Amino acid sequence: MKTRAAIAWEPNMPLEIDLVDLEGPKDGEVLVRIVTTSLCHTDMFTLSGHDPEGRFPCILGHEGVGIVEDVGKGVTSVAPGDHVIPLYIPEDPNCPMIRSGKTNLCSTIRETQALGLMPDGTSRFSYKGRQIFHYMGTSTFSEYTVLPEIAVAKITKEAPLAKASVMGCAVPTGMGAVRNAAKVEAGSTVAVFGLGAIGMAVIQGAVMAGAARVIGIDTNPAKFLLARNLGATDLVNPTDHTDPIQKVIVEMTGGGVDYSFEAIGRVDVMRAALECCHKGWGECTVIGVAGAGEEISTRPFQLITGRVWRGTAFGGVKGRSQLPGMVDEWLAGKFSVDPYITHNMTHDRINTAFDLLHRGEAIRSVMHYQPGETLSNNLPGVILNDL
Amino acid sequence: MKTRAAIAWEPNMPLEIDLVDLEGPKDGEVLVRIVTTSLCHTDMFTLSGHDPEGRFPCILGHEGVGIVEDVGKGVTSVAPGDHVIPLYIPEDPNCPMIRSGKTNLCSTIRETQALGLMPDGTSRFSYKGRQIFHYMGTSTFSEYTVLPEIAVAKITKEAPLAKASVMGCAVPTGMGAVRNAAKVEAGSTVAVFGLGAIGMAVIQGAVMAGAARVIGIDTNPAKFLLARNLGATDLVNPTDHTDPIQKVIVEMTGGGVDYSFEAIGRVDVMRAALECCHKGWGECTVIGVAGAGEEISTRPFQLITGRVWRGTAFGGVKGRSQLPGMVDEWLAGKFSVDPYITHNMTHDRINTAFDLLHRGEAIRSVMHYQPGETLSNNLPGVILNDL
Repeated sequence: MKTRAAIAWEPNMPLEIDLVDLEGPKDGEVLVRIVTTSLCHTDMFTLSGHDPEGRFPCILGHEGVGIVEDVGKGVTSVAPGDHVIPLYIPEDPNCPMIRSGKTNLCSTIRETQALGLMPDGTSRFSYKGRQIFHYMGTSTFSEYTVLPEIAVAKITKEAPLAKASVMGCAVPTGMGAVRNAAKVEAGSTVAVFGLGAIGMAVIQGAVMAGAARVIGIDTNPAKFLLARNLGATDLVNPTDHTDPIQKVIVEMTGGGVDYSFEAIGRVDVMRAALECCHKGWGECTVIGVAGAGEEISTRPFQLITGRVWRGTAFGGVKGRSQLPGMVDEWLAGKFSVDPYITHNMTHDRINTAFDLLHRGEAIRSVMHYQPGETLSNNLPGVILNDL
Repeated sequence: MKTRAAIAWEPNMPLEIDLVDLEGPKDGEVLVRIVTTSLCHTDMFTLSGHDPEGRFPCILGHEGVGIVEDVGKGVTSVAPGDHVIPLYIPEDPNCPMIRSGKTNLCSTIRETQALGLMPDGTSRFSYKGRQIFHYMGTSTFSEYTVLPEIAVAKITKEAPLAKASVMGCAVPTGMGAVRNAAKVEAGSTVAVFGLGAIGMAVIQGAVMAGAARVIGIDTNPAKFLLARNLGATDLVNPTDHTDPIQKVIVEMTGGGVDYSFEAIGRVDVMRAALECCHKGWGECTVIGVAGAGEEISTRPFQLITGRVWRGTAFGGVKGRSQLPGMVDEWLAGKFSVDPYITHNMTHDRINTAFDLLHRGEAIRSVMHYQPGETLSNNLPGVILNDL
C-alpha cells in the first residue's frame, strides 16, 4: 500500500512529505493508522546526525497514537479497531529482561530495532524500490506504520486521539522517572534540569508524588510560566548566576536536593544534576540522551559521600502492562496532558514543528493526519491550520 | 602525659616511633588506650601524599580498639574501663545528617577532623612543643589517643581485643557496603574488584546475604585462596585476559552482575565495576578512595540503560548505634574476623606492616602495644615477635 510519510533523507535536511510504499504486517506484526503524532527532541537529535543509531533514509517519529487497521498471523492481543500507542521500548512477556520483573528494557527486538529494521531484518518501507529505514521501531511520521505486536499498547477508546500522542513518550518518560526510577517521596525537594516536555512531566510527577519543593532549571525563561503552572515552586536560570549551577542549587536548598533529574542530554548538566544532590542520600536520575561518544564524569567522592547516579529510559514504564493504566489516570483527571500541547498542525507542516522546537517555542507540536478527524477549536495550544 | 606513637613526619618517609606529648581530654572528649591497631590501605594512601586531607606531621591509624582511661567534662555515654572502637565517622544523635535517618555521614566535627584537629580547632598531640596533627579523628598509631565522645563506639568486653581492631574499618566497611548500600539479596551475582581486607569483607558479606555467585577480581593471584576460603565462587585475574575486565565479567555471567563493588580506589576500575553490571538493574558500589583530583567517567548510556552508580563510606554503618551489634554478630559466630589477620607484631614494627601491605603480602597486620596483654600463639596469622 501507499502511505503519506515525512521522509528524512539525510541528516540536517528538512523532511520531505511524499507517498511511500508500505508492506503489510507479517507474522506477529500489526498495521496501525497513526491519527496524531508529536515531535520530541529525540527525533531532532537523530536528524542532527549525532545519534549513533540513526540510519538514513528513514521515517522518524516515536510519539504517536493510532488505530489498528490489520494484524499479521499469530497476533492475538490486539485486533482491527483497537486504539494503540506505539512503543519504542516493547514489552515481550517472554523476554528474560521483562521476566526478571526488575526493568522495562525489553531486549527481544533490540538488535534489529537499532538497525532500523523489523525483527525479520527487513524494512516494510520503501520509496521507488529503495529501502527506507524504520526509526525506534515506531516511525510515527508515516500515516500508516507497521509494528511488532509486542510494540503496541492497547489503550481505552475513551482517550481522545487528538491529545493522546504525548502519552507515547513525554508524559510516561518524565512521570515514570519520578515514580519508577527515583521513587520520589512526599515532602522531598526536587530539581529538574531542562524544561522541555519531559522536564515538565517530571515537575507534574513530582507534584503528584507530594514533593514539597520543585525547582525548575532552564536557560530559557520562556519556559518558566508553564513550569509554574504545573507546580514548580522555584525557577532558576543558570545564566543569571556566576557560580556553577550545582553550587547555586546547593545553597538555595541548604545542602542540596533529595532528587534531581537531567532532561536535556548534556553531559555537563548531568554532572551538575548529580552534584546538586544532598550529601548522604541525594539521587540523580539521568533521562536525557547524550551525543555519540560523550561521557559523564565526576569525582568519585560525590558517590562515596552518598549520592547516587542512575538513569532511566521511557521512565521505567513497561509499555503494554503499565502505560494503559497511566492513560486511565489521565482520563480520571489525576493529571492533564493539555499543558504539554503548545501547537497543533496538519502533518504536512512537520518542518514547522521542528523549527518551533528548535527555537524553544514549542513544548509539543501535535501533527494531525486527518484534520477533520481531530483538529478542532477546543484543543489546547495554537492551531496552525490557517497558514 | 607522654605516649608512644608512630609519627608520620612527612609523606613517603618511614614512621618514627617516639614519645609524644598528649594533652588530656577536654569537655566532651575521651582518652583511650589503644590495645591493638591494624594497618589499612587508607593510612598508606595518606602517607603517599596523594590524600588531599593529609596534613603532616601527623599520627596515622584509624583501625583500632582500646580501653577508655579517662573522660572529659560532660561525657556520659562511656566511662573508664569501657572497651571502645574509635570511629573515623562519628555518630552525633543531634547531627541533622544522622537525624535524617538516611545516612551515616555525621557532619558534626567534619570540618575540624579534615584539618587534623579536635573539634575546638586544636591538637592534643605535640612533640617538643611542635603541633602534631590528628588523623581521621582517631590516630590509633599512638598508644594513647584522645577522641570526641561521639567518635567512640562502646563494645562488649567479651570481644577479644587482640582481634577486634579489624572491626574498626575493614569488616564493617565491606560488609556494610553489601548490606546498607547495595542491599544484596539472596541469589544475586556479585563481583568484587580488589581483594584486600575490604574486598574480602564484601565477599564475606555477600555470602552471608545468600549471593549465589561471588566473583573476586584481583591482579594478585596470591589473594585467591583466601577469597575462596571466604566463599568466592569465581576468581579472575584481569591480566590473564586481553579483553577489558568488564567484558570478561559480562561474558562469564551471561549479561553482567547484579551487584559490583570497587574496593581499590582506582577510577578506571570504578568504571569497569559499573560497566560489568547487568543492563536494567545492576548496581555498582564504590568503596575505594581515589587520589586527589581524579575523576570517574562513563557513557551516560550505561545509566540510561538501568545501571546505578553509588558509593559508601564506612559501609553506611552508624558507628555508635550499629557497630556494637556487628561485634555481637562476630562473637555469636555469624562470621569470623580471623581470615583478615595475616600478621601480628609489636607496635614498634609498624614500618614492616607498611612493607607487607605494599607488597600485597598482608591483608591485615595487627599491631600490639602491650604484647604480654594480647600477643599469644592462638592468634590467626603470622606472629612476628621473634625478629
